[in-house]
Order: sequence, then structure tokens, then C-alpha cells
Amino acid sequence: MRPSGRSPDQLRRIAFTCNYTKHAEGSVLVEFGDTRVICTASVEERVPPFLKGKGSGWITAEYGMLPRATHERTGREAARGKQGGRTMEIQRLIGRSLRAALNLEALGERTVTIDCDVIQADGGTRTASITGGYVALVLAVQRLLKSRKIKTNPVHGQIASVSVGICQGVPVLDLDYAEDCDAETDMNVVMNDAGAFIEIQGTAEGHAFRRDELDAMLRLAESGIADLLLHQQEALESCGIAR
Amino acid sequence: MRPSGRSPDQLRRIAFTCNYTKHAEGSVLVEFGDTRVICTASVEERVPPFLKGKGSGWITAEYGMLPRATHERTGREAARGKQGGRTMEIQRLIGRSLRAALNLEALGERTVTIDCDVIQADGGTRTASITGGYVALVLAVQRLLKSRKIKTNPVHGQIASVSVGICQGVPVLDLDYAEDCDAETDMNVVMNDAGAFIEIQGTAEGHAFRRDELDAMLRLAESGIADLLLHQQEALESCGIAR
Amino acid sequence: MRPSGRSPDQLRRIAFTCNYTKHAEGSVLVEFGDTRVICTASVEERVPPFLKGKGSGWITAEYGMLPRATHERTGREAARGKQGGRTMEIQRLIGRSLRAALNLEALGERTVTIDCDVIQADGGTRTASITGGYVALVLAVQRLLKSRKIKTNPVHGQIASVSVGICQGVPVLDLDYAEDCDAETDMNVVMNDAGAFIEIQGTAEGHAFRRDELDAMLRLAESGIADLLLHQQEALESCGIAR
Amino acid sequence: MRPSGRSPDQLRRIAFTCNYTKHAEGSVLVEFGDTRVICTASVEERVPPFLKGKGSGWITAEYGMLPRATHERTGREAARGKQGGRTMEIQRLIGRSLRAALNLEALGERTVTIDCDVIQADGGTRTASITGGYVALVLAVQRLLKSRKIKTNPVHGQIASVSVGICQGVPVLDLDYAEDCDAETDMNVVMNDAGAFIEIQGTAEGHAFRRDELDAMLRLAESGIADLLLHQQEALESCGIAR
Amino acid sequence: MRPSGRSPDQLRRIAFTCNYTKHAEGSVLVEFGDTRVICTASVEERVPPFLKGKGSGWITAEYGMLPRATHERTGREAARGKQGGRTMEIQRLIGRSLRAALNLEALGERTVTIDCDVIQADGGTRTASITGGYVALVLAVQRLLKSRKIKTNPVHGQIASVSVGICQGVPVLDLDYAEDCDAETDMNVVMNDAGAFIEIQGTAEGHAFRRDELDAMLRLAESGIADLLLHQQEALESCGIAR
Amino acid sequence: MRPSGRSPDQLRRIAFTCNYTKHAEGSVLVEFGDTRVICTASVEERVPPFLKGKGSGWITAEYGMLPRATHERTGREAARGKQGGRTMEIQRLIGRSLRAALNLEALGERTVTIDCDVIQADGGTRTASITGGYVALVLAVQRLLKSRKIKTNPVHGQIASVSVGICQGVPVLDLDYAEDCDAETDMNVVMNDAGAFIEIQGTAEGHAFRRDELDAMLRLAESGIADLLLHQQEALESCGIAR
Repeated sequence: MRPSGRSPDQLRRIAFTCNYTKHAEGSVLVEFGDTRVICTASVEERVPPFLKGKGSGWITAEYGMLPRATHERTGREAARGKQGGRTMEIQRLIGRSLRAALNLEALGERTVTIDCDVIQADGGTRTASITGGYVALVLAVQRLLKSRKIKTNPVHGQIASVSVGICQGVPVLDLDYAEDCDAETDMNVVMNDAGAFIEIQGTAEGHAFRRDELDAMLRLAESGIADLLLHQQEALESCGIAR
Repeated sequence: MRPSGRSPDQLRRIAFTCNYTKHAEGSVLVEFGDTRVICTASVEERVPPFLKGKGSGWITAEYGMLPRATHERTGREAARGKQGGRTMEIQRLIGRSLRAALNLEALGERTVTIDCDVIQADGGTRTASITGGYVALVLAVQRLLKSRKIKTNPVHGQIASVSVGICQGVPVLDLDYAEDCDAETDMNVVMNDAGAFIEIQGTAEGHAFRRDELDAMLRLAESGIADLLLHQQEALESCGIAR
Repeated sequence: MRPSGRSPDQLRRIAFTCNYTKHAEGSVLVEFGDTRVICTASVEERVPPFLKGKGSGWITAEYGMLPRATHERTGREAARGKQGGRTMEIQRLIGRSLRAALNLEALGERTVTIDCDVIQADGGTRTASITGGYVALVLAVQRLLKSRKIKTNPVHGQIASVSVGICQGVPVLDLDYAEDCDAETDMNVVMNDAGAFIEIQGTAEGHAFRRDELDAMLRLAESGIADLLLHQQEALESCGIAR
Repeated sequence: MRPSGRSPDQLRRIAFTCNYTKHAEGSVLVEFGDTRVICTASVEERVPPFLKGKGSGWITAEYGMLPRATHERTGREAARGKQGGRTMEIQRLIGRSLRAALNLEALGERTVTIDCDVIQADGGTRTASITGGYVALVLAVQRLLKSRKIKTNPVHGQIASVSVGICQGVPVLDLDYAEDCDAETDMNVVMNDAGAFIEIQGTAEGHAFRRDELDAMLRLAESGIADLLLHQQEALESCGIAR
Repeated sequence: MRPSGRSPDQLRRIAFTCNYTKHAEGSVLVEFGDTRVICTASVEERVPPFLKGKGSGWITAEYGMLPRATHERTGREAARGKQGGRTMEIQRLIGRSLRAALNLEALGERTVTIDCDVIQADGGTRTASITGGYVALVLAVQRLLKSRKIKTNPVHGQIASVSVGICQGVPVLDLDYAEDCDAETDMNVVMNDAGAFIEIQGTAEGHAFRRDELDAMLRLAESGIADLLLHQQEALESCGIAR
Repeated sequence: MRPSGRSPDQLRRIAFTCNYTKHAEGSVLVEFGDTRVICTASVEERVPPFLKGKGSGWITAEYGMLPRATHERTGREAARGKQGGRTMEIQRLIGRSLRAALNLEALGERTVTIDCDVIQADGGTRTASITGGYVALVLAVQRLLKSRKIKTNPVHGQIASVSVGICQGVPVLDLDYAEDCDAETDMNVVMNDAGAFIEIQGTAEGHAFRRDELDAMLRLAESGIADLLLHQQEALESCGIAR
């Protein structure tokens, strides 16, 4: 029995509140159980220096946690004067994952910045950020299409992410904080709607994992991500964005 | 006529959502119209070095804005590697204001950190932070009282804050962003429930202000803060905290 | 009786040594009693990026204290790698205050930087910096006028600043360090020569202040600033600069 | 045909020069073809604060590249004032991987720091760092055993790492720089001598990878790591360290 | 003929204003012509960690320039967030030089910090800083002796410094800014009152210097430093400090 | 007898391994006994802002030490977030010294960066860096000449550097770490092939040094540098670069 009472292959409650803030071109509050992340997509009419004049756009991501999103207060990165290694690692992962969903030429010479700010953390903040970040990205792109700034939809794939792990010898889906601390192995998987992999990051926290355990975890991830893709579509449809 | 259609002495819609996040000892989402700030109060069983062994507690505040809380995306302070002057100024103001409400000896050797994170900005983020920060502080202190970590309530006064200004020659209360940009004079006032002043910070943005204009602004602030004190009490009572 | 033997409405000895250093376009050593600040005005033929090509100039200020300007040695901000919150707050105040005295269009596309460096601190360093910074600014502008780089004097008002407070229940003018530490309330006031307010920053250090106490402090500030304006004029006249 | 003329399942020339520098407790120059990394293991008789008095040791890693280890000169991180996200990500990976080989209690209250400094980069610097870092760790631990500072060998597993990828549709082992730039998918795998996984980090650079491609890459990694484990053993035996 | 009209072996006007500021244990304004430096010596009852419990004191130095001490305004190091290489080099030189004058055991477990802040720069700021820093140090030590915190005078030698150089082929003493910019060779020499060398730092700016040129410069330095030692003694005697 | 058994005027074993790494335009591993430094010269087709459009090139240097190049592990500067004063001082010295060997106009509008990274430290790392840096510079310049990017050889002098000192009263050449720690005086000398001085930096670590000791050290330096110049020429000739 999992601490949350869920079955091994069961996601937490998944919720998307689209247009959560009013200034961003795209914004969503994504919830994976008690994990809550505000994802915003900001469009700016400029590209980084290495892309200037090349007719291509760019997408990048930044990640942060409010100091008291966690059980104990975590020092504010702005006050400490630098982003930690974990933050950097996560925001690079979010950026790479969403870049895989986007045709940068079709975006034109503009930059989309996905900001993922964790309001409350209960495990899985990076997978919620990627899954919510995709929704914010689609919302921002729709606005560009409506205002006719771009003609072709640059989003060519749908992306979602979930964590899987081995807890007390059992492969489980979508770990919450209680499980995450205990897990012998923890793996974050990003996939697209063609059932292919964008990123796999698996770490043996306690014992090294065998090939059959890896296979079991990947099967759980495939099924969980299929569910998340449906949740994303429903959320977007309820905002009037057709599949 | 104000851009929002309000009368000169009218506050925006004021709302408090207590216990907004689950980890913090005290937390509240405060809304002054479209300005939304998450205020959390974190209690830690330690004091800064200069207070060690002196039998006194400490209260401090930190302030931040999500990058897309604003019309245009603002660079993340954690990524730039330092907090700007405006941020520092505001968090010092919040800390000083709430310190005036608290008997630090009665708190015992512990530190309360008030984190004010702006999710959506529409003018008045610092006054909303102080007003919400007070509520988060009371919620955290109630938990300390219930768990019998402290015996006497260290909160000896009630604190709220509002902005006032002169827009197109007319003194107005609780400026939103549209007014704030235009104001000739902008003043932030912090008061307690005895009708006395904790802080006054007035700035002539366009033209210097005369003594009679100052008096008119102070009258508006007194009336607005009286209202805010009532809103705070209602919010706390609805969580079962008696006046 | 005040620690210095002064009456409640009495300024400390005020002195200006114009052209204190030889490289700056304008420079002055300003003394408020034992508080001594070197103020220099540097003119550079460039504007910040947000003003490029707009036909307007800019004025900004920086503030610093020599490490041993204070009773105990204060760590050097350059060595610690960042300016503290107090420094940022003060230099923003100086910049805003002097900006109120200047017609930025008449200045042309150039930047004036006011550097205020405290050589010896005895309370009131920010009010001395504003009051001395005004004199340095006028000296630099006169040089621009003489060299015919500008035709119209961009200085359209005279600015001075003083602190007031409540010490042992008595409203007093121009607090020195001994009083500043003890003050129940401390307020910095910036006014122009039309008797109007540029900035008011009042802080209750001990007890909140009542409206009548605020009024008494403002009356002291008005009278003190009137005196300071005369001192500034005398200093400038002794350098051959007519009123 | 691969750019280097290797077959898809062929490692580059692998070489270890043990005791490469004289000061470190353990040191090795590891070469994966033209990729050359100096790995040193430094033993210090202290642990980080969170482990003080707990009877456990610690192992951590740092990673750097000489500015001209790369085709174009890369700015020196020390001069830029911070380590980049890629550096942080890699050094966290090295540390986690080697931690999986070590019984921290048996190490006693001391810290081993593995420094991996890339002298020449030609792809695979992180896998060479892990593989060489393991050798440096064993050399340092042997010295602790010889000097009887510890009694039980804390190294309980053997660790090696290799990259695999899909280049022009073909799964290949141990990518060099020419392949790395071109790869559609790039995966770093860390395994132990029991054939189990410590870390898997796979990234789709171009197209998302299918499950069968993942399986093919994992098979290549298993075979490549088996070879690397033999190379490590030979290197250690040639220094008189029995299996 | 030198730009200043001086003969090749002539110092600029040398002046010391002892007790220039009131808070520091020792302070002096030192002037080498138009170069003006405030030197303060601060005594603190603590030593750096590496000296704790060893019965020895410490002396260190910090150096800074007011932004407009120079012809053009130089960016404030505190605002840029770090001290430049030149600043670091100079403050290390000042510290090493004065350390040579002091018996650290006799000082007891306390730290003397020499702050040298350049108010106006006209060449030779580092040699003026060392020469003035020595005077500030003696003033601070005298206070320790008077208050009987130490019994033996820890100052066992007298230290002064001057620059020499080759300008238009002629060896000259005590270069001012006009000469410094033009000099083919520039050398800073620190000596004690026994006529021995503490530091020599010679740099060929234009052409490499021959051995005979080096000898000529050293002769000038010896004579200039002999003069500076007399100036220091006179300044100290006029404060009642016997030779 | 010196700790190494050398006679007072004897250099350590000197070795140059040219073309030590494959990416840099010029590279060499220089060894002064157990001191080993990788020197690379990187050519970039740009100049710093202050030289743009002036038809002149630039040469600059950076210096670093691997964390475990030293007896005890030294914290990585990149991790601490800044270069220390010693590093800055050394890299400024290397840059100035090599600049003296180069006709910057003949180099054209390009920048040569000399990176000196110490792999193993045993005293004299800065003198080895300068001596090896010269060789790397010549190798890079030869490549520019061969590729006809420049027509005239901009290297107009040969530069080498050695340390001298007084150990136990005896003047000695090329100090290793054991001597360096003990030396009463330590001096670094940079000279050219015309027998003239580029830099002299002498420091009295223990006792001040007399003029006759200085002369003895300079004679040792002259003879040591003459030897080093021959070593450099042999190394370059063995790469086919004629004198």
C-alpha cells in the first residue's frame, strides 16, 4: 500500500487552471496532487545573440520555488545570489523537453520563456512543470496565431512528463514527497504523443536497478503519460482550443 | 473618474484566503483588486547571531515577484544573481512594519520569516504584502500558542498599509497600476489599530506636494486603513481566531 | 536638553567647501556637525539605454561610506561583493530627490552622476548627501553653461533635506548619532525652495507616532530646510554663482 | 561508417595513467580516445555540517574544463564568477555515481573530493570522468587502508560509464565529438559490476527515440561498460592493487 | 624639465594631517602633491581563523578609490560587485609592506586593518598609501600602548614607499600622473629605516630597462625614502609621539 | 646544501612538450622540475572594445590551478565565484610580460589569450607560466604566419622568467616549494634576450634585503634566464621553428 493509498499505477489528482494570471501570453496553474506550479509562457520579440538574423525563434525555461513551498523553509536563491545546481538542472530539462515540441523556424524571430514557479511542493515538481509548461506554451502560441503574428502552428508534438520509481521493491507511478524520499530508484520520463521518448533520467538512490525493473518503470511511465496527454487536451479544449 | 470607476476614497476589492499553502506555519493569499500576493510566515527555532542568548526573537521579511507578475516579463533576480534596490527597499519596509506589531521577547528565541511573493502585480504590492503579512504572522503565532511553545501572545498591535496619491490633482486611495504610473505623488502609509503611524513614505513623482495635499492624503489613508483592519479581523475570525 | 546641548529646533554647524576635489565637474565637502560627506557631480556625454535618442538627459546617484566612517569598522561593500539594502535605499532617495530639481530635457543627452561618499558619520548622512549633492550639481551645471554645452539652466528648483525625530517625547531637528540611536521616531524630509515636499520618509523606531507629533516634526523640518537653503545659497555665492 | 572508422559497438582507445600527479591521495589521467581528463581524489579529515558527529563520511565531485580544452576557447568559469548549468549538472552526476560505489560509514568521518578536470575534450568527458574518478577513488582508499586509517574497504562496487547514441539511424557506442554534434539521441549510462544501472540519462536531440532504439542503446552500453570495467581492473592491478 | 617643474630627484610636497577622522584608532590624510589618501587603522579584538589561539595578531589592508578621484569617473567597485585586479594587487602590497614593520606576537590576538581610500588621484596612490598607512598604524598602536592593552611596542621598523621611473630617458623620483602615463619604466620601492628593501616592483611599460637604469632608479628611491622617513617622524612628533 | 641537492645557481630540470593539446593554436606543457603548467595560446579574430578599429591587436593572459595541484586541496575558484587576489596578480604579470615581446600592430585586429593552468605546483608557477607562455605564443604566431593571416612576425623579442631568493642567507636560483616557504626574500624576474629587464618583483618575506643581496639575486637571475632562453630555442627548433 502506498502512503497515499493509491495503487502502484495510479496518478495523483491532475488539474489545470488555464489563464491563471492575466499578464502572461499563456499561463496555467498545474496540480499533481498537492504539488502546485504556476507556469507562464512569455513571448518577446527578440532572440538570443547566437540566433540573430537566422530566421529562427527560441524557447527557454526558468524554474524556481517559493521559499516556503517546502516542508522546511529553503533560502531564497535571489538572496543567496545564485541559482543552485538542482534548479539549473531542472530548468535545462524543461527547456530541452519543450524545445522538442516546437518548430523554431515556424515561431519566427521571437523567444518564448516558460517560467515554472512552485507554490507548493509535494514531489514531482519537474514533471508537473514540463506537463504544465506545455499547456502554457500552447496558450501563448494560440494568441500568436489569433493575432496573425505567425501563420503556421509551430507546435508539432504534444509533450508530458511523469516520474516513476521503485519503492519497497514495487514499481510505482507519480511519486509524491513521502515516496520520493524513500525510493530506491527514481526516474523522470518525458514522452510525446507518438509514444516516443524525449528524456529519460533514472537515478539509483539506494540500490542499483536491474534491467527488468527499468522495463517495469518504463511501462508505468508510458501508461501515466498517456493519461496526462488526455488531461492536457481536456484542459485546452475547455479553453476553446481544438485538438 | 478613476480608470477603475472607483470613487477617490474607495478601496479595491480586498480578499484574504487563509491557509493558502500547507507547509508554512501561517499562509495567506491576499488580493487588493488584481494584485495578488502569497504571504507565508515561517517559524524557525533559531535567531540571528546578534541575538543569540539574549532571550529575544526576531522577525524579518523577504519580497519577490514572479517574473511574469508584471505587464512585461521582468528578469528573475535569482538568475541575475542579486536582488535589486527596489526589492531590498520593500522587504526592509515590510520587516520594519511588522516588527512594530510584535513583542520580540514574548516570541522567545525563534525567528519568523515573512515571505511575500507577488503572483500578479497591479499596483500596491508592498501595501498588500504588509497587510497580508500581518495575517500570516497572526496565523503562525496562533499555532505557536496552541502548541504551547509560547504562553503570551507576542502580537501587541494590528498593522495594515495602503497607498494614497494625487492623480490629476485629486487625492485618491489605493492606487492601481494605471493610476500609479500617472500619479504626481505617491505615498505608502502603515498604521496600527490605535490610529498611529508606523511608516510614511511619500514621493513627489511629478510636482512637489503642498502641505494641504499631504493632509488630504493622510486623511484618505486613515480611512482606508480602518477598513483594511476590519477586513483582516473578519478573515482571522473566519479561521476561528477571535479578535 | 539634547546630548549636543542644542535647542530642539537648532541645526548643527553647517559648512560647504566647494571645489573640494580637482577632477570632478562639481564637488563639495558638506558638513552637518561631525558628519562629513564628499559630494561630486560627474558629467558624461552619454545616457542610459532607455533614454537613447530621446533628447533627454539623466541624473543618478551613488552612495558609499568609508569603512571606518563609523564607530566600529563596517565591512567594505566592494570586498563583500555587493551593496547592502541600506546603501541602495539611500542612493535611490538621493537620485529621486535631485531629479526633482532638474529639467532633464534642458540637460541634453548627458548623464550627471552624484557620488556621495561619507568620510565621517555622525547621523544624518543621507540628508547631508542630498543637501551637498544639490550644491555639487549646481557647480557642474554652471561649468556646462560656461562652456556653452547647454544654453538654458536645467536646474529649476533648489533642494535641501534634513532629519527630524521624537527623542524622549520631544520633537527635535537634525539628529546626530547619539539621538538617532535613541529616537522613537525618525523622519527624513526633502523640500524645495517653494516650500513643497519632494520626499517624506518617517519610521516609528519605538512607538508609533500620532498625527500631532507628525505635524510638529513637519514644522521643524520646514524651518530647518529654510535655513539649509540659505546656507547653500551663501556657499554658491561665495564661488561667484548668483542666486 | 563512423567518422573515426570504428564499428558501432567499438570503444575508442582507453588508457589510464595512474598516480599522474604527486600531491593527491589518488590521481589518474584517463583517456577515451582524444578526450583526456585528470581525475584526482583528495581525502580531508572533515565532513560537511549535515554529517558532523554521525559517524559517516562523504564523497563529492567537482568538474571543470581548461578554457582551451575545446575547439573554440570557452570563457573561464572562475573569471565569469560562476559555474554554468552544464558544469553543475555533470559534477552532480559524477558525485551521485561514485556515491553508489562507496559505503560511507566504512569511510569514517572524512570527505573524498573527486576533481575531474578536462585537459582535452573530444566527446564523452562526463563518462570518462566517472570511469577515471572511480580509479582515483580506489587509489585514495588504498592509501587510507595502508596507513590503517580505515580497516574495511569502503568501496563495495565497481562503477564505469559510457555514452551511447543514435547517429544517422544507427545505434553506436562511445560517441566522439564529431558524432556527438550530429547524434539524434545521446544517452549516458552508469553501471556497476553486477550489471545493474546507477544512472541513465537519455536525451532526444533531434527526433524522439522509440522503445526498440532505447533497448538497442542499452545493449551497447552494457557491453561497453563490461569492457571498461576490465580496463579499470588492469590499470589498478598494474599498480599492485588486487581485484 | 619635468611637467611639474621639479628636478629629477625632487619629491612633491608631502603632508600628513594626523587624526583626520574621529572614529578610527589611527587616521591620517596623506598628500603626495595632489594625490590625497585617507588612511585609517582600525583595531579589532579578533584574529582570522588561521591564527586563533596562536598568541599572534594580524595586520591587513584594503584599498579603494572614490569614483571621481580620477580624471574620468571610474565605476564604483561596490556597484560592479567585485574588486578589480589592480585594487587587489595594491591592497596585498600595502598589507605585506606594513607586516614587515610589525611584531605580530607583541600585538597580541588582535587585528589591525589599514584602510587606504584615495580621495584624489594624481599618480603614486600606492606609495602614498603605504607611507600614510605606516603613520596611521603608529597612531593606533600608541593608543593601545596608552590604554595598556599591550606592553611592548610591536612596531619594530619604520616603513615608507616611493615610485621611481624613467621618463624620456631620464630617471626621476615620485612620478605624478602626467609622468606616470608617459613613463617607459615605472618602479615602486618600499624600504625601511635601516636602508633595506621590503618590496621592489618594477615594470617596463615601453622599453625594457637595463641594469644601469635599474641602479639609477634605486639610488633615487633610497634618497626619496630617506626624506619620507623624516616627514613621517615630524608628523608623529607634532602629535607628541617621540621617535 | 639546498633541499633538492642543487647548487645555488642551478636550475631545476627544464622541459617543454610542444603541441601538448590539439585544439589550441599554440600549446606547450612546461616543466620546471615538478612544477607542471599547460600553456595554450588561443587566437580570436576580435579585439577588446577599447581597441576596435585602431588596427592593433591584443594579448592577455589567464592563470589557474587545478584544485589538487597543491599539497592540500585548494578550493576551486569557479565554485567560490571569484578569482583570488593572487590569481589576478599573476595573470596580470603574465599578460604584461608577454605584451613586451609583441608588436601589437603587426598582430592585426586579433586577440591572443594565453591560458596557464597549473597541473602540479612545486614553486615557481608564475615564472614557468611566463616562460612556457612565450613558447605557446610563438607556436600560435607561426600558424598565423603559415596561413598568411599576418605577414610580419609580430614577436620582436624573446622573454623568459625565473625566481631567485635568499634562503638561509644564501642567494639561490629557481626556488622549489620547500625553499619558497622558507625563503627570507623571494624575487621574480622577467628578462628579454637583450639582457634587459621587463619585470622585477621582489618581496622580503622575513628580513628586509640589502642592496648587495639584491645585486647577488639579479646576477643569478641573469644567468638562469640566459639558460631558459636556450631551452626555449631548442624546444622551438625541435618543432621546426628557426631562431
